[in-house]
Amino acid sequence: MNLPNKKIAVFRREHFNAAHRIFNPLWDDKKNAEVFGKCSNPNYHGHNYELVVKVVGERDPETGYVIDMKRLSVITEEEVLERFDHKNLNLDTIYFRDLNPTAENIAMVIYDLLRKRIDEKLELQVRLYETERNYVEYPA
Amino acid sequence: MNLPNKKIAVFRREHFNAAHRIFNPLWDDKKNAEVFGKCSNPNYHGHNYELVVKVVGERDPETGYVIDMKRLSVITEEEVLERFDHKNLNLDTIYFRDLNPTAENIAMVIYDLLRKRIDEKLELQVRLYETERNYVEYPA
Amino acid sequence: MNLPNKKIAVFRREHFNAAHRIFNPLWDDKKNAEVFGKCSNPNYHGHNYELVVKVVGERDPETGYVIDMKRLSVITEEEVLERFDHKNLNLDTIYFRDLNPTAENIAMVIYDLLRKRIDEKLELQVRLYETERNYVEYPA
Amino acid sequence: MNLPNKKIAVFRREHFNAAHRIFNPLWDDKKNAEVFGKCSNPNYHGHNYELVVKVVGERDPETGYVIDMKRLSVITEEEVLERFDHKNLNLDTIYFRDLNPTAENIAMVIYDLLRKRIDEKLELQVRLYETERNYVEYPA
Amino acid sequence: MNLPNKKIAVFRREHFNAAHRIFNPLWDDKKNAEVFGKCSNPNYHGHNYELVVKVVGERDPETGYVIDMKRLSVITEEEVLERFDHKNLNLDTIYFRDLNPTAENIAMVIYDLLRKRIDEKLELQVRLYETERNYVEYPA
Amino acid sequence: MNLPNKKIAVFRREHFNAAHRIFNPLWDDKKNAEVFGKCSNPNYHGHNYELVVKVVGERDPETGYVIDMKRLSVITEEEVLERFDHKNLNLDTIYFRDLNPTAENIAMVIYDLLRKRIDEKLELQVRLYETERNYVEYPA
Repeated sequence: MNLPNKKIAVFRREHFNAAHRIFNPLWDDKKNAEVFGKCSNPNYHGHNYELVVKVVGERDPETGYVIDMKRLSVITEEEVLERFDHKNLNLDTIYFRDLNPTAENIAMVIYDLLRKRIDEKLELQVRLYETERNYVEYPA
Repeated sequence: MNLPNKKIAVFRREHFNAAHRIFNPLWDDKKNAEVFGKCSNPNYHGHNYELVVKVVGERDPETGYVIDMKRLSVITEEEVLERFDHKNLNLDTIYFRDLNPTAENIAMVIYDLLRKRIDEKLELQVRLYETERNYVEYPA
Repeated sequence: MNLPNKKIAVFRREHFNAAHRIFNPLWDDKKNAEVFGKCSNPNYHGHNYELVVKVVGERDPETGYVIDMKRLSVITEEEVLERFDHKNLNLDTIYFRDLNPTAENIAMVIYDLLRKRIDEKLELQVRLYETERNYVEYPA
Repeated sequence: MNLPNKKIAVFRREHFNAAHRIFNPLWDDKKNAEVFGKCSNPNYHGHNYELVVKVVGERDPETGYVIDMKRLSVITEEEVLERFDHKNLNLDTIYFRDLNPTAENIAMVIYDLLRKRIDEKLELQVRLYETERNYVEYPA
Repeated sequence: MNLPNKKIAVFRREHFNAAHRIFNPLWDDKKNAEVFGKCSNPNYHGHNYELVVKVVGERDPETGYVIDMKRLSVITEEEVLERFDHKNLNLDTIYFRDLNPTAENIAMVIYDLLRKRIDEKLELQVRLYETERNYVEYPA
Repeated sequence: MNLPNKKIAVFRREHFNAAHRIFNPLWDDKKNAEVFGKCSNPNYHGHNYELVVKVVGERDPETGYVIDMKRLSVITEEEVLERFDHKNLNLDTIYFRDLNPTAENIAMVIYDLLRKRIDEKLELQVRLYETERNYVEYPA
């Protein structure tokens, strides 16, 4: 069988649990409550975040892999889970001191952390589930 | 962290339960049965439809949202669930009197209903699950 | 390894799609609407029902099976799916002419249909999902 | 069909998002960290809790219901979700000031809150998922 | 709040991937094929097994735990995953040389391996998913 | 309602169970073990593969279908499941004698088998889940 070498996407799903509060630090608590409702509860709430990392490229003809999923899992562990798992995103990380930890912004930060570790010739996209019913994808 | 402003996709999942019958009103029952089989049962059957609404655009820098998911949920409630939930699609709605309520056609109607309510500068796509094993996406 | 022969439970999951209306035939439409709300819509609505059949007994020492899952699947196909799949439960079956097709009652009817086909020395229980969020188990 | 009136179980699934910290207030932070590890992070972490409420009893012959699921959902909303959803369990509720919010203890508190609202002749059990991989059931 | 100390069940879900062949070593290949069909394919087939370990007992009043889920996960890793994950159950383990690796028998072996590691005053049950549609529970 | 005829995607999900071994036949067992770890276990391991077939095109105005999902299911049964279900991918199929059965390569082979049976004017993509956490999409 003569397989053409079109690009393939591989996906690896990981999860982490974190507390957060939707909060724009340039606004006071009253305005945050008006705009963000219960998502801005001052004492935080939390989620089981599900993260799907997508990497696109050509297969290595020797391994038959685009990227070794175990290595992709280790990179995600080191860059994302060690920073965010069982943490308060607003208080325990440097990324959301001035940045509102919406799903959109968390996905952009995760993309940025992973991008540095993935070979430039491979495309990267992250999907982040805040709940089963709310999720985001970056870049679209 | 200096985040580039590429486009982001946000997704909101909703569900509704409805009866329907796959039926081309220009054909008689015999031809409908030949082409559509048990899906054309004259007394209807039904599904738990799962709907995923995807909206693509740039983040609002103040809220960190592409669109407020709560507002997206309300729009979907008003435009889709109030019309279709616990209804007979063929009999109880105006949309499928002359249009066969296949998953493809239901998705197109839902797209049309939501498109009017979503800001033009945002892209829209709907995914509709008829069952866990059969689903459609519009536009592709 | 010397395995004690305590009882084991085996489970087989199947699904069917059907239309129904929650409706007590001894009441008029007005009373049905008051008690059952939108679930009593006269033109029906529908569900993707998920059915889990549980059979409890001792392993056959030769096959290592409590019951052959393939045979359990065939019995469920013949007794349940052929009767209910892609049907209107109120109109197309004899079981819900005088019986309200609530999840409780559907589960009891399914139990009765399967009980005759499963060896008496095996215990039987059915779980029926009307949606992911509503389900019943009979007998409790 | 002559249905015997054995007991039936009905289940209703709800969800809420909350922050918490596994923390025994009789111990200092060091001992809490030793015993509970990252689950005792002082700034909290969080979960998407999935709650399944199980009610067991006989069918009402008129409605075909053990209990109206919509009413069960409303009771759960009033007793559990309004207290716990988008909250910090340790700080924002009165229940976990002196009680460690482990899944076991949260389930017991939820059982206690619901028990008062469910008819005494019906049995009650709650299942609480802290994650897809960790959950508890009370009473066993 | 004065919580009664009824027993609680805690559940931990793990997974492993393995090859197997349904095969009674006392029968020849022809009889195995007649009884077990494609499940007895001589070159094996395989599954993503999902294992749910249930432990029932009283809460420790100091920790609020029935058993530390992390320790339960480590025990399952040591006793089950290290033996069975990415293995051929018939060839690579000592347990299924003379025992047919049906879901029932695998569950009984896992129960036996875990039982030795769990405190005698705690009850134990295992649920094993061979596929999403076929699973077993031991003891029933 | 005047529906524009943009392209629609339809998806059909199927599953099969198979054994495999990640193995480059040009390397010896030692090198395979170094590169692929436990995934290269000489006696094989296995998976419950979930396959999602995506077909993109315009609706037929008479049927309201892009492609009849039942026919798509039959094609997938004939081309993929009959070849791979309950098989050892390395030993029982002609496709992976010289080709390493990574998820990437299996997806490419499945694409090739289905492509011949789907009308040329329809686009085709396959997604293959090796586990819930590892999956691939071809072409990307």
